[in-house]
Amino acid sequence: VSLAYHDGRLEPEEAAVLSPRDAGFLFGDGLFETLRVDRGEARDVAAHLDRLERGLARIALAIPESRRELEAAIAAVAEAAPRPIARLRLTITRGTPEKGPTRRITAAPYAPPSEGCYQKGVAAIRVPEIRLDSGSPLAGLKSLSYQAQRLAFVRAEAAGAFEALLANERGMLMEGSRSNLVAVLPEGILTPPESDGCLPGTVRRRLLESGAVREGSITPEDLLRAEGIYLTSSLIGVLPIGTLDGRPLPIGPEGGRLRRLLAEPPVTPAA
Amino acid sequence: VSLAYHDGRLEPEEAAVLSPRDAGFLFGDGLFETLRVDRGEARDVAAHLDRLERGLARIALAIPESRRELEAAIAAVAEAAPRPIARLRLTITRGTPEKGPTRRITAAPYAPPSEGCYQKGVAAIRVPEIRLDSGSPLAGLKSLSYQAQRLAFVRAEAAGAFEALLANERGMLMEGSRSNLVAVLPEGILTPPESDGCLPGTVRRRLLESGAVREGSITPEDLLRAEGIYLTSSLIGVLPIGTLDGRPLPIGPEGGRLRRLLAEPPVTPAA
Repeated sequence: VSLAYHDGRLEPEEAAVLSPRDAGFLFGDGLFETLRVDRGEARDVAAHLDRLERGLARIALAIPESRRELEAAIAAVAEAAPRPIARLRLTITRGTPEKGPTRRITAAPYAPPSEGCYQKGVAAIRVPEIRLDSGSPLAGLKSLSYQAQRLAFVRAEAAGAFEALLANERGMLMEGSRSNLVAVLPEGILTPPESDGCLPGTVRRRLLESGAVREGSITPEDLLRAEGIYLTSSLIGVLPIGTLDGRPLPIGPEGGRLRRLLAEPPVTPAA
Repeated sequence: VSLAYHDGRLEPEEAAVLSPRDAGFLFGDGLFETLRVDRGEARDVAAHLDRLERGLARIALAIPESRRELEAAIAAVAEAAPRPIARLRLTITRGTPEKGPTRRITAAPYAPPSEGCYQKGVAAIRVPEIRLDSGSPLAGLKSLSYQAQRLAFVRAEAAGAFEALLANERGMLMEGSRSNLVAVLPEGILTPPESDGCLPGTVRRRLLESGAVREGSITPEDLLRAEGIYLTSSLIGVLPIGTLDGRPLPIGPEGGRLRRLLAEPPVTPAA
């Protein structure tokens, strides 16, 4: 039986009853975070909580838990999570007027891509019909209002691909439906800037802090001239794209270098 | 005790248990409709179901209910709804992989704006910091991923206003956070076209079908030279805006005429 944190209590995952009047269900009004758990230990907790706190401030939602209490709840759910690897999800919604915000943390087994995928790359598709808006009030928020990204992911699955790449209203590449994007270009190793509307992912942040990657817009043409295109996320780390819309992409040595970088302890988050 | 329809069954509203793994809760992946119920009878059911069906096709979500079964479920929940006036909500989500889509219909008491509001108008604000994207894959969908509109509505409430007006990425007025927009201008009575990204509201549709209103983009300047600006929705009908950002707006006779139009039986929906 999996353990969940729900509105202040640790309990079996099945115990939770969600109100159909929860603002998360009615209006997608909330935020979430996805963390990787390795053998009971959640990774990059500080970076995830940093982002969550910034997001909650932006949507003017206050929760009763202190940061220390959230850390303890994450640690407890992670400790009881399936091994060796699990995916931990933290969800905060505006809840109901009577009860206040909903806070929920759960874990589920996670099977990362095989080592072969890290060598040969995965398939990705572009979905030009699903554009995101860099000027959206939700840009940069890991919002529960995630339907556009889900529609993109469903297209990827239908095409037998691992991920769908999304562009913004100016045609600049932003991110995958559940990952950030890194392109190895002659001018440097780039990841789209937040001003292009991307989500500030935690692996992306560590790569930027390491100095190995810098912010720079990625155009559709860049995708075709890059020496390597990588997906990054808490769950997958740094994963090369092997084919884009069915066309093979080169996979240079840089991805392996970035992956080794991530294995090092994270840089202490800036204040 | 209110009656609800939930996944095929009519039951007391409190009986429903929603899974925290419902895609509506996890990702805002679903659609909703809000209908007005007068003394047990839901209004404009055909127009709402037309829109719902188009939306479900767009997000590739199939539900087990036939249209006739949805009509019967709406009628049953409406018949048991609080009187004299209620707000009926129909929610469809992608549910869970095991269970399939979630279908839920509930009703709650609704107090419409006072007759004085229809004479003197309500307060509205603009929220230029919350722009919507006319090219979004969600444009025109009454999506559960509604957080941007909710954030706009929260601003309106904080400002003591009834509604917040939203513009698109080109600065064209689109709609309110939960209503459509109609402007009485020298060149005609206009409501933003769907190509500007607005939701195709059912009252808006009836006004267009009547020939009294036509589609045309509304600019920020139009708001200040109009002889009347109106909000429309299933719940409120046609309601004048009395002040915009605190500045009084004229209220001409057209709103009353449009309101009387709505009291007439709806035009038979086009095939």
